[in-house]
Amino acid sequence: MAKDFPTREENFSQWYNDLVLKADLAENSAVRGCMVIKPYGYAIWEKMQAVLDKMFKDTGHVNAYFPIFIPKSFFSKEASHVEGFAKECAVVTHYRLKNSPDGKGVIVDEDAKLEEELIIRPTSETIIWDTYKNWIQSYRDLPLLINQWANVVRWEMRTRLFLRTAEFLWQEGHTAHATQQEAFDETLTILDLYAEFAEQWMAVPVVKGVKTASERFAGAIDTFAIEALMQDGKALQSGTSHFLGQNFAKAFDVKFLNKENQLEYVWATSWGVSTRLIGALIMAHSDDNGLVLPPKLAPIQVVIVPIFKDGDQLAMISEQVIPIKKQLEEKGISVKYDNRDTHKPGWKFAEYEFKGVPVRLTIGPRDLEKGTVEVARRDTLEKSVVPLTEIANHVVDLLDDIQQNLFNRNLLFREKNTINVNTWEEFVDVIENKGGFANAHWDGTSETEEKIKELTKATIRVIPLDNPKEDGSCILSGKPSSERVLFARAY
Amino acid sequence: MAKDFPTREENFSQWYNDLVLKADLAENSAVRGCMVIKPYGYAIWEKMQAVLDKMFKDTGHVNAYFPIFIPKSFFSKEASHVEGFAKECAVVTHYRLKNSPDGKGVIVDEDAKLEEELIIRPTSETIIWDTYKNWIQSYRDLPLLINQWANVVRWEMRTRLFLRTAEFLWQEGHTAHATQQEAFDETLTILDLYAEFAEQWMAVPVVKGVKTASERFAGAIDTFAIEALMQDGKALQSGTSHFLGQNFAKAFDVKFLNKENQLEYVWATSWGVSTRLIGALIMAHSDDNGLVLPPKLAPIQVVIVPIFKDGDQLAMISEQVIPIKKQLEEKGISVKYDNRDTHKPGWKFAEYEFKGVPVRLTIGPRDLEKGTVEVARRDTLEKSVVPLTEIANHVVDLLDDIQQNLFNRNLLFREKNTINVNTWEEFVDVIENKGGFANAHWDGTSETEEKIKELTKATIRVIPLDNPKEDGSCILSGKPSSERVLFARAY
Repeated sequence: MAKDFPTREENFSQWYNDLVLKADLAENSAVRGCMVIKPYGYAIWEKMQAVLDKMFKDTGHVNAYFPIFIPKSFFSKEASHVEGFAKECAVVTHYRLKNSPDGKGVIVDEDAKLEEELIIRPTSETIIWDTYKNWIQSYRDLPLLINQWANVVRWEMRTRLFLRTAEFLWQEGHTAHATQQEAFDETLTILDLYAEFAEQWMAVPVVKGVKTASERFAGAIDTFAIEALMQDGKALQSGTSHFLGQNFAKAFDVKFLNKENQLEYVWATSWGVSTRLIGALIMAHSDDNGLVLPPKLAPIQVVIVPIFKDGDQLAMISEQVIPIKKQLEEKGISVKYDNRDTHKPGWKFAEYEFKGVPVRLTIGPRDLEKGTVEVARRDTLEKSVVPLTEIANHVVDLLDDIQQNLFNRNLLFREKNTINVNTWEEFVDVIENKGGFANAHWDGTSETEEKIKELTKATIRVIPLDNPKEDGSCILSGKPSSERVLFARAY
Repeated sequence: MAKDFPTREENFSQWYNDLVLKADLAENSAVRGCMVIKPYGYAIWEKMQAVLDKMFKDTGHVNAYFPIFIPKSFFSKEASHVEGFAKECAVVTHYRLKNSPDGKGVIVDEDAKLEEELIIRPTSETIIWDTYKNWIQSYRDLPLLINQWANVVRWEMRTRLFLRTAEFLWQEGHTAHATQQEAFDETLTILDLYAEFAEQWMAVPVVKGVKTASERFAGAIDTFAIEALMQDGKALQSGTSHFLGQNFAKAFDVKFLNKENQLEYVWATSWGVSTRLIGALIMAHSDDNGLVLPPKLAPIQVVIVPIFKDGDQLAMISEQVIPIKKQLEEKGISVKYDNRDTHKPGWKFAEYEFKGVPVRLTIGPRDLEKGTVEVARRDTLEKSVVPLTEIANHVVDLLDDIQQNLFNRNLLFREKNTINVNTWEEFVDVIENKGGFANAHWDGTSETEEKIKELTKATIRVIPLDNPKEDGSCILSGKPSSERVLFARAY
């Protein structure tokens, strides 16, 4: 596990990419823009899925599965949706190959051309609302609270592992409601759920807020998002929840008979998080020694490394280790006992440190004599010596402590890097030199927002939900403003 | 929940299709050949996934994710694979749409044509072995025991919900080994695992066996399968495990340095089960009253229906029901208490019977007086009265009993419908009139197998693994044969 990769300071972007590759999380595939998620990376995704899926179910949602193909014409039905999603996409035009006449491989069979092209879903509102049309007749059929775990494809030109890939994995919730209020409440329920997941499980503090018109989901009335701050001072949108109003119901003619026996269009939400979260996890916590994973999402939470010269020593150590491993596993902790004799302890230390395993226990002959074990925590790299008899409880507490510490240090980082700026010069200084969130007055127009983006590459990440009202003047136009908004460069 | 659908006797095929639709398991989508898996159907798939995933992990496998797209040229690398899989498939040729000049919707942007077409994976051996090439250098990198949960697409012309659809969900295992023996053992380990899942969880007895050359997976040395018998006497291939030899290693040039420091090609297996299993589950157990689900895979295992005239009665009943529900849930049983006042008990009885809920408990005012509850089991439709104090333990035993009963009656059915035939006339009579497995001598040639298929639509399902040797003569050609093989018409 050679550390032949740049530090965050030297080249954050390269540090990230090398870390993903060298820690065996993912790699680029033979297909442009598509990644292979390797077992260690996928194990993190599985942990995320399990937690989120339970949260969705606990709030009354169920899973279903809709087709990967969307007829081309569906995209044109919702005017703004087509602009946002039907452009850079994978288009299926044929359904058969045939042997090449020159005998070399296979070619597309031109006789097998589809009457209407099919698009690989970039998101599923259209196919799902076309389906909901048949499922909803009366208020008794509502609400529909459905989620789907799926792959989607967006033909991105510049891709980065986990952060932006042509194909990615995600969940997409699509709910249907009888009233505007219920749909709106659902949108915020999910936003809260996403924030809870980010903060309690990923140990990444997030700002909950609403997007400006220009950053809105194509087809939404309002887009809410959770925004996190990465160590390089760039923001990362980590989850979105859209209040869709009646836009998709109107586009697909989905009406229901209300309690007063009148026909009304159905109200909708959609919301999603993706494998992008793995990118956020890496960029939020990891350091120049490798990955740092929060205990609650780490595939291996504790690794035990024995130090031994021969089989007899290993046997004596194992006699102590096996019961400890069992004790920890009974507490729901995932433990790996790496007793291989093909790798030296030093190699193992470097390996698990690099892979971000939160806690490492080391036991050698001298520990046996003293009845102790050496405990190393990944977040601070601190070591301590703990009596064998106390180790199980100690590890439980330590994992909690690491989880909390990662959150706290991220929160502190964000607080230090969220700066109230009042002039254009201050704004440019934060965006260009310091990084982080610039909390600034804005005149509320898309024109100014666009101009600021052109000049600095900074965008309005969100208008925070709990934003205090404050009179001021726009940093660019000088026009009056009633609240600050969060600007940053973003992934 | 109207029973306006044919009996199995009247029209098995229509019975199946109507049942899938009316029980809210799945439906056809707007995209030809693709299904929507509805929440109730998806809940069964989730239960199957959870069990299988645990079985895979308990046998040392890990999950990963590979791209949905496969470059067209990859298929041509393994000669027989291309014949089997590259023909009827979804072909992506373009990566962009643009606004139509006539202002009506979007059209394919001809400027955005891919240099090489991409195929939506019909199965992933090619893209995975292209990836493994970079992961495997030495025997220390082996074995690779990787599974993927994914969607795949095969452009089927005639589709049937769950049984044969253009897109379906499955898992595909792809393992790499240093020796032929280890790969072969893995193939059979998975075959056993699939059989255990079918029999212990789905309550469907299966025959384990090897496929003949003509039914082999395109690219395999040997294909093993589990075959089940449906109620209409047709066989259903329920899972396959392929010993791939070194075919894909040679096609993608995947070599490793063995312990003797020599370069060798890697040995491979692949194996999969799909949402087709849901079709098998339905056709094996259900009856003319609707679905019958084995308790171990039923999304709702127990439903409790209160009988009440007013809120006071309901309150008194709920006082008894809530603790019972809690008791059952603590035993890991999924319970639904349907206390809605919008539907009458009779409607609820019909609904849950139709949806295949294994056990129904009914409690009315008279039960309260007597301290009893009425218990109805879905498999036999029998009812009994049980003291409230004994109900939790009774239900646990009853669920086990139903699970076992479903398996036993399927086994009995298969035994009655597996017939040793010795002449062509007997063979035709079984295939044409009786249905089931015809256990017959065959001369071992593909020509005879093909001829029998032409004449009767029956194929050799498998040569059972534990097949006794027996001298005989082929039912068609009369040539000598050393063992019987299982023929049937199949899904």
